[in-house]
Amino acid sequence: MSYGYLATIRTKEGHRDEVVEILLSGVDGLRAAGCRLYVVGVSETEPDLIWVNEVWDSRDHHAASLQLSETRAAIARAMPMLTGEFTGQELTIAGGLM
Amino acid sequence: MSYGYLATIRTKEGHRDEVVEILLSGVDGLRAAGCRLYVVGVSETEPDLIWVNEVWDSRDHHAASLQLSETRAAIARAMPMLTGEFTGQELTIAGGLM
Repeated sequence: MSYGYLATIRTKEGHRDEVVEILLSGVDGLRAAGCRLYVVGVSETEPDLIWVNEVWDSRDHHAASLQLSETRAAIARAMPMLTGEFTGQELTIAGGLM
Repeated sequence: MSYGYLATIRTKEGHRDEVVEILLSGVDGLRAAGCRLYVVGVSETEPDLIWVNEVWDSRDHHAASLQLSETRAAIARAMPMLTGEFTGQELTIAGGLM
């Protein structure tokens, strides 16, 4: 069964859309790294929050992706715009339409 | 931009997997109803909780799907196994890999 990670990232006021752009800028390389799904969402009800829903071939693929130089560079670019408040929920994917 | 809905459903103890089966049983008809993504996940850390991540062509497509006879029948089958505790977060999908 594949591995899911459901995250929220809180940005400093007014920086949400810049961080969304950074998150989306690396999408091209994700599939080769074992990512099956990567969805970035926002909401009017929480204007400084970003939701990221990910499905990976395995937990190890997800962990390894965080060590890629592209990922590390993106994290470094985004970090000054984040408050440091994150949530994360690991999931076992039971199935569905992808 | 497409519409996201991020839900959790709490089941009565020991009924999670039956409800997951019901949720997955209707997947075949979802795409025709305007559903782009429907992912069902579970976690060892919350053994009676189910996460459902959905992306639809629009908010209206999602709302209309809840009125389909297949959906209503599935809800009726699952209902006796649910505690009534739900969470839901509407999202605007910014992009990603799907």
